[in-house]
Amino acid sequence: MECIKNRRTIRKYTTQDVPSDLLNSLLEEAFRASTMGNMQLYSVIVTRDMAMKEKLAVPHFHQPMVTSAPVIVTFCADFNRFTKWCELRNANPGYDNLLSFMNAATDALLVTQNFCTLAEAHGLGICFLGTTIYNPDQIIRILNLPKLVMPVAAITVGYPDENPEQPDRLPISGIIHNEQYHDYTSADINSIYTYKESLAENKHFVEINKIENLAQIFTDIRYRKEDNEVMSDLLKRTLKEQGFDR
Amino acid sequence: MECIKNRRTIRKYTTQDVPSDLLNSLLEEAFRASTMGNMQLYSVIVTRDMAMKEKLAVPHFHQPMVTSAPVIVTFCADFNRFTKWCELRNANPGYDNLLSFMNAATDALLVTQNFCTLAEAHGLGICFLGTTIYNPDQIIRILNLPKLVMPVAAITVGYPDENPEQPDRLPISGIIHNEQYHDYTSADINSIYTYKESLAENKHFVEINKIENLAQIFTDIRYRKEDNEVMSDLLKRTLKEQGFDR
Repeated sequence: MECIKNRRTIRKYTTQDVPSDLLNSLLEEAFRASTMGNMQLYSVIVTRDMAMKEKLAVPHFHQPMVTSAPVIVTFCADFNRFTKWCELRNANPGYDNLLSFMNAATDALLVTQNFCTLAEAHGLGICFLGTTIYNPDQIIRILNLPKLVMPVAAITVGYPDENPEQPDRLPISGIIHNEQYHDYTSADINSIYTYKESLAENKHFVEINKIENLAQIFTDIRYRKEDNEVMSDLLKRTLKEQGFDR
Repeated sequence: MECIKNRRTIRKYTTQDVPSDLLNSLLEEAFRASTMGNMQLYSVIVTRDMAMKEKLAVPHFHQPMVTSAPVIVTFCADFNRFTKWCELRNANPGYDNLLSFMNAATDALLVTQNFCTLAEAHGLGICFLGTTIYNPDQIIRILNLPKLVMPVAAITVGYPDENPEQPDRLPISGIIHNEQYHDYTSADINSIYTYKESLAENKHFVEINKIENLAQIFTDIRYRKEDNEVMSDLLKRTLKEQGFDR
C-alpha cells in the first residue's frame, strides 16, 4: 500500500474537475468500512457550487483550498435517518445522547479515512479540514443539517498541483505500548520530541515568532487554551442543539 | 483498491500468529494518516498476553474473538504525551476539554481505519469492537491509561479462518447529498430501507424474536434506549475522570 506510506496532504489543485461518477464510486467503496451494527450512521454532503464553497470558507477560517478545490466533501455523524426509520416502524429510538453521537462520529470517521485512501489511490489529493468541529454551528446552517446530524470531518479533493515534502512523524516507540500503557518519563518525552524539535523549519518558526521553543508554537499561537475552551463550549452547545445531549 | 471493496469483518482466526515486526510496520504506515497540526494525538496498546485478553473480554461483553484472536489493538485518543511535552517546555497546554478530546479521537480513528485497511491488504482479517466506548472505565483500568487518554477503538486481528458473505449496505442515494442536506420524507425512508428489510436473514430475526419488524430488532434488542442512556452517562463520567471535561 505505497499510497498510504507515501501520502502527503495536498492543498493546491489543478483546475481538472473530479467527475461525479468517480466521486460516488469512491464513496460507495468507502461505505464498506466497519459500521456499528451495520447501521451506517453517516451522511455525506458534496459541495461543488462556488457560492456554497464561499459560504463554507468562513467556518473553515478562509483556508484557500476551500474555494480552490473542485470538491469539498463533508462527513456527518447521522442518527436522523435511522431514527426516522424507527419512528415510521413503530419502534422506539433512543439515540439522542452523547454515546450515540460518538457511535455515529466513529462510523463517519472510518468512512472518511477510507474515502481519503481511495481518493489518493486514484491519483487525487486531499486535505483534512480540522476546522469542521471548530465552527460546527455555522456548517450546520450552511448545509441545512437537521437534528441528530453533526459535521465531523470535511475533506477538500482535487488533482494535485504540488508535491510537498512528507512531514515528520514521531518514532513509533513513542506511540505503541505493549500490554499496558507505560506513562512517559521526562527522558521519554525528550527522546520522542528531539527529532521534531531539531528540524530546521521548526527552529525557523520558533525564531520568527520570538518564543522559546516549538511547544510554545502550539500552546501560544496555533492551539491556545483560551480558544480551545471557547470552541469546546460551542461544541457542547451545538451537540445539545442537534439533539445529542439528553 | 479491491481490498476495501471486497472486505468483510472476520471474527474467526487461524492459530497463526501476527509477527510483531509486521504489526509495527502496519502501524507505522497507518500513522501517515492526517493528524491535527501534526500532533499525532493517539497511542496504541497491543495485547497478546492471554491473561490480558481475558481481562479485556469482560468490557467487550465476552465476544469470543477477544480471546481467540492472536492480537487485540486498542487505539486511544491521547493528549497526555503532548501535554507532558508542553509542561516540560514551559508551555501552557489547554487540552483538558471536550473539543480536544474530539480532536484526539478523530486522529485516533483515522489511524484505526488506516491500520484496518493495511492489515486487510496484507491478508489479515479484522473485527472492530464497538464495545470499546461502552465500558471505557474498565478498559482504562485494565490498560493502565492515565488522564487525557481515552480508548476509542479496539480491533481484533488475525489470519482469517472464515469467509462470510459481505453484508448489505444502504443505497448510496440514501447517504450522499448534493450541496445541502435534503431531509428524508417517509417515502425516502421506505425506499432506503426496503432492501435491508427484504433480506431473508433479517426476516428470520424478526420471526424468531416475535416482534413486528427489523427496526424493533435495533430499538428493543440490540441498541436499546435505556442501555444507551446508562452507557452515555458512563461515557460522560469517564471523560470527566480522564480530565477531558474542564
